[in-house]
Amino acid sequence: MAAEPHRRVVAGDVDGTNNDETLAMSNDEQQEEPSIEKGFEGKSVPTWQKQITVRAILVSLLLSVLFSFIVMKLNLTTGIIPSLNVSAGLLGFFFVKTWTKLLSKSGFLIQPFTRQENTVIQTCVVAASGIAFSGGFGSYLFAMSPTVAKQIPDEAGAMDVKSPGVGWMIAFLFVVSFLGLFSVVPLRKIMVIDFRLTYPSGTATAHLINSFHTTEGAKLAKKQVRALGKFFSFSFLWGIFQWFFTAGDACGFASFPTFGLEAYQRMFYFDFSATYVGVGMICPYIINISLLVGGILSWGVMWPLIDAKKGDWYSADLKQSSLHGLQGYKVFIAIAMILGDGLYNFVKILGRTLWGLYNQFATNESVAPSNGPNGALTLSYDDKRRTEFFLKDQIPSWFAIAGYVIIAIISTIALPHIFHQLKWYHIICIYLIAPVLAFCNAYGCGLTDWSLASTYGKLAIFTIGAWAGASNGGVLAGLAACGVMMNIVSTASDLMQDFKTGYMTLASPKSMFVSQVIGTIMGCVISPCVFWLFYHAFGTLGEPGSAYPAPYALVYRNMAILGVDGVSALPKNCLVLCYVFFAAAIIINFIRDVVGDKYSQFIPVPMAMAIPFYIGSYFAIDMCVGSLILFVWQKLDRAKADAFGPAVASGLICGDGIWSLPSSFLALGGVQPPICMKFLSRSSNAKVDAFLGS
Amino acid sequence: MAAEPHRRVVAGDVDGTNNDETLAMSNDEQQEEPSIEKGFEGKSVPTWQKQITVRAILVSLLLSVLFSFIVMKLNLTTGIIPSLNVSAGLLGFFFVKTWTKLLSKSGFLIQPFTRQENTVIQTCVVAASGIAFSGGFGSYLFAMSPTVAKQIPDEAGAMDVKSPGVGWMIAFLFVVSFLGLFSVVPLRKIMVIDFRLTYPSGTATAHLINSFHTTEGAKLAKKQVRALGKFFSFSFLWGIFQWFFTAGDACGFASFPTFGLEAYQRMFYFDFSATYVGVGMICPYIINISLLVGGILSWGVMWPLIDAKKGDWYSADLKQSSLHGLQGYKVFIAIAMILGDGLYNFVKILGRTLWGLYNQFATNESVAPSNGPNGALTLSYDDKRRTEFFLKDQIPSWFAIAGYVIIAIISTIALPHIFHQLKWYHIICIYLIAPVLAFCNAYGCGLTDWSLASTYGKLAIFTIGAWAGASNGGVLAGLAACGVMMNIVSTASDLMQDFKTGYMTLASPKSMFVSQVIGTIMGCVISPCVFWLFYHAFGTLGEPGSAYPAPYALVYRNMAILGVDGVSALPKNCLVLCYVFFAAAIIINFIRDVVGDKYSQFIPVPMAMAIPFYIGSYFAIDMCVGSLILFVWQKLDRAKADAFGPAVASGLICGDGIWSLPSSFLALGGVQPPICMKFLSRSSNAKVDAFLGS
Repeated sequence: MAAEPHRRVVAGDVDGTNNDETLAMSNDEQQEEPSIEKGFEGKSVPTWQKQITVRAILVSLLLSVLFSFIVMKLNLTTGIIPSLNVSAGLLGFFFVKTWTKLLSKSGFLIQPFTRQENTVIQTCVVAASGIAFSGGFGSYLFAMSPTVAKQIPDEAGAMDVKSPGVGWMIAFLFVVSFLGLFSVVPLRKIMVIDFRLTYPSGTATAHLINSFHTTEGAKLAKKQVRALGKFFSFSFLWGIFQWFFTAGDACGFASFPTFGLEAYQRMFYFDFSATYVGVGMICPYIINISLLVGGILSWGVMWPLIDAKKGDWYSADLKQSSLHGLQGYKVFIAIAMILGDGLYNFVKILGRTLWGLYNQFATNESVAPSNGPNGALTLSYDDKRRTEFFLKDQIPSWFAIAGYVIIAIISTIALPHIFHQLKWYHIICIYLIAPVLAFCNAYGCGLTDWSLASTYGKLAIFTIGAWAGASNGGVLAGLAACGVMMNIVSTASDLMQDFKTGYMTLASPKSMFVSQVIGTIMGCVISPCVFWLFYHAFGTLGEPGSAYPAPYALVYRNMAILGVDGVSALPKNCLVLCYVFFAAAIIINFIRDVVGDKYSQFIPVPMAMAIPFYIGSYFAIDMCVGSLILFVWQKLDRAKADAFGPAVASGLICGDGIWSLPSSFLALGGVQPPICMKFLSRSSNAKVDAFLGS
Repeated sequence: MAAEPHRRVVAGDVDGTNNDETLAMSNDEQQEEPSIEKGFEGKSVPTWQKQITVRAILVSLLLSVLFSFIVMKLNLTTGIIPSLNVSAGLLGFFFVKTWTKLLSKSGFLIQPFTRQENTVIQTCVVAASGIAFSGGFGSYLFAMSPTVAKQIPDEAGAMDVKSPGVGWMIAFLFVVSFLGLFSVVPLRKIMVIDFRLTYPSGTATAHLINSFHTTEGAKLAKKQVRALGKFFSFSFLWGIFQWFFTAGDACGFASFPTFGLEAYQRMFYFDFSATYVGVGMICPYIINISLLVGGILSWGVMWPLIDAKKGDWYSADLKQSSLHGLQGYKVFIAIAMILGDGLYNFVKILGRTLWGLYNQFATNESVAPSNGPNGALTLSYDDKRRTEFFLKDQIPSWFAIAGYVIIAIISTIALPHIFHQLKWYHIICIYLIAPVLAFCNAYGCGLTDWSLASTYGKLAIFTIGAWAGASNGGVLAGLAACGVMMNIVSTASDLMQDFKTGYMTLASPKSMFVSQVIGTIMGCVISPCVFWLFYHAFGTLGEPGSAYPAPYALVYRNMAILGVDGVSALPKNCLVLCYVFFAAAIIINFIRDVVGDKYSQFIPVPMAMAIPFYIGSYFAIDMCVGSLILFVWQKLDRAKADAFGPAVASGLICGDGIWSLPSSFLALGGVQPPICMKFLSRSSNAKVDAFLGS
């Protein structure tokens, strides 16, 4: 994937470095330890049925709702979604541990809390909240809405709209979300056991879960949970406090002209968002710097220069939001950069995938990724025991294949009823190619921790869109095809990561599969409902400059239009600039790969640079503040910062995220904040004072 | 003193408990130690001429300017002035230590930094910044200004005004400020050596200075200076940041309706002032709670109830600021409470003073105050050595008496030229009584750490005012007499504290005297200049509701009018309420004294309760936030909070205080802040948006 940073790893999908450091906090010693499993030898592993408990499902449901809100909020504000695995792991552990402690005190405890059960929760939550991302509520699905379409007034497919509706969205998700699951199940043994792929995120999560279930780890986890809780409360209360001052547009802390009104006009201000400060603490420094560099380059240099050409390059009479004016440059240059970055990484990852596969079969030996646990042929005690448990509960291949075929048939029949622009032959074509791409993506992700799901989605936009053609609703067909493709491919890599986690925690593949199914069902229902809540509570959803601009929705729609219409409608010189930035993205990426880690950490990442092109750099400033806090903290006390930084960041993200639940209910109930904190220039203030005084 | 919390000790003059805990941080062990002087045995004591170095005077000058700004700001905002001794001690030590370190590195160091020199700096700064308080810029002197007079439109002595002018203020201070100095010099041996009075603040300061000059103490001091510096910078930067958002009235963080607009109307909000958060950290909890209780009682309960009687108790047509309306109740009830508290403590302290003196002469033995170092007749090694040094350099009594008489003559001739309402016989009368009162105050302060200077000042207002009479400018005469009296009495107790400090640090009385003279000269010039800067930079100085309301100026002028005109002009029922609160102040104080420390810490202090009656409780909320921070810090890490709390508080106070220097220059230069952060209700915001949109 490329365009939007991905649920599992922001770092991973923006710059290809895996974020083990973030996830494997406090576990960095364990890779060198002789054996983890020996530490667990005394503890029995429950049967797969017993790994899926009612309490696990309840906790998963709770966390799925929580994370769906958070992911949805992130989707609709910037599209940058950091790894929430640490918080999911910590919170899951905390809830079940509290639960079991209460029960064991009252003498009702039947079954102790095992790491397998913990893995089941983790998997279920990942599957459910993953749909909040891959459901495209901030991208392809919302791109179909009239709100986004009307921002591109004179496009060819202006009639290709579909208003968001909770019914059809749930139906759509149900018919496409399970395909990835079935396509990946038969491959799990090959990927995990035969190829011994790393799956850095999955491995890190497994380390985290394993560490929780050691005595010392549980103690640290307790402290981390406390830190998380403290910052969760702070962030939540801060959200409440901020709310009171937001009566009206451009009111409140989110419109604070921290660096002056001039800078505010150029979207350069600190907006006091606890979420993005937290996100900044999780993302690598270079990502935050890239965002800032991108913001300064675009809003600080390029847009003012282009704005000076108003009347020359484009008509001066256009509305601010018209894509034939400045807005067009913003959107299309961002798209060019995203596509350039995506293409480069697509080729790179695919190359590595094919090269890896070639080696696999040519030498009949497992690939030894540089940072993998062990590439040697002789199996360690850990690997033996893990393989034994992984192979114990089998899911027959015929079951997986039959499942895929049946769902594909249902889907082929159902989808054209939802999107009448998408024909049955488009769908069959996707379903024939999809398993191959899913395999490629799962393999690439295992090697590099980098999911290319949204790049495959964009491929579908362009190919199916062009195939359908403008007159036959190519825009909507392309977007729908993107959704179908993305869901399959994204689920495939996500779930393979989970299988790796399960492998390392001795969780049964059967319990993992069931948990994934349950999680997917939850996600298919929760995500559309959460989106519906946001959509109805905040009337300005998707409008530029509002609190929820959903920047990728416009980007996706424009890509679909490009695929159908070509580039003829772009304003003057825009195409040239697009080529320049497309090329620049490829070149910068290439340089980053060539110079090595020592220098590449100082070279901005093109993908990250493109994000503020459209929405401005206010969130980049939040994220840099987060970076700064972490940086200072690491200077003061490295060990503590490493152990508690992710927990603090998760607290900040979760608290602010969950505040969007009550705040949307307030908005739905018509409760409006009482005060407006307004920022006026001295001269307007004098006018306003005179006006109010009279 | 009573009305305004006093420069040296807020706690001391409001509730009579000495604030040793605050000052003697990190020294609490020393009182039990066998000998402090043995630790210094190896170090030689320089001659008195060598104790006063050029570097000491330069550092004193710097700190005097700094503290004059801070005290002036506090004077003009609320009149609450915390003990700045810790910060003066720390900063003095830091500057000279840095200076000597630099010199010793470059090989130019002639004289090492001794604790005697440190005491000289401390004394000089206390003398200079003391004048910023006793000069009455926030009370009697500013009460003469037309700004304050015009708030009391129909008073008898409306013509009794004198516009602030830097020339006559300097002249006035020069002729009155040295009298206290000379009146107290002959008494120093009796007070310090014969009576062995405690002087808690002076003792604590001496402990602080002594501790700085031990190896371990110097290390701690360095850390404390770093903490001070950190919070100084934070507070200063926060001041700068705030400034940008204050274009216009009711703009910026100082008008932040933290608890809603309704509460803001009742002056109940957190105004983000670093100064008062710091002040709150230094003041005892009960003072802050008293302020809050007073604010809630007055603005939350009484004023709304009285406001409901508008049209019945007083005319509804009056201006908001008219003293015949609600404003009158606010001011006079506050005055009643301040006078009640003052009277109670005047009687109490005078009683203790007389009782102490009676014991002194009746038993011919030194009084042993409960918390004094040693009441026994056999002298310890420390006392022997200290007495030896204290008696070495004598200042002849004839010199002191001659000085007093000469200055009194000059003053008697000069003062009627400055205030023509004040006659020569008034002045002679004051100068005959003053030495007795100065002695009483210095003695009482030595016993209880409580200076009654402003109570003596109020006595002068009423007696001289009534003597002069309304038709002969009694109001101005009363205020001027108050100034003369307060300066003498206040200086007497302050400087006796310094002699005690000098005694305990082996500083020569001669060097102390010279340093006090230098400090007084500095203060006489610096304070009027600083006031002048504030007066001209901030045009609204002294106006109710502005950033610098100078609440005590109005209170003092009204006391002077009361003294001359009596109580006839008060609105309906106001006098009854005044009697009730006057009595309540006495009763509450009595209860506080009777129930003992265990319960009295939960009973509010009437003096503190009265302060928010007029200006509202926003600063009380700041101070409670400071208390809360300290409280939580003490719970988390008692030792660290005790060692660094005062340094952090000083940093917050000093940083924000010194920002008033550049901010007043900006205002003088006509540089206005660019942005207004405005708070509007939802309905006015809608109106304003419509107005700005059109």
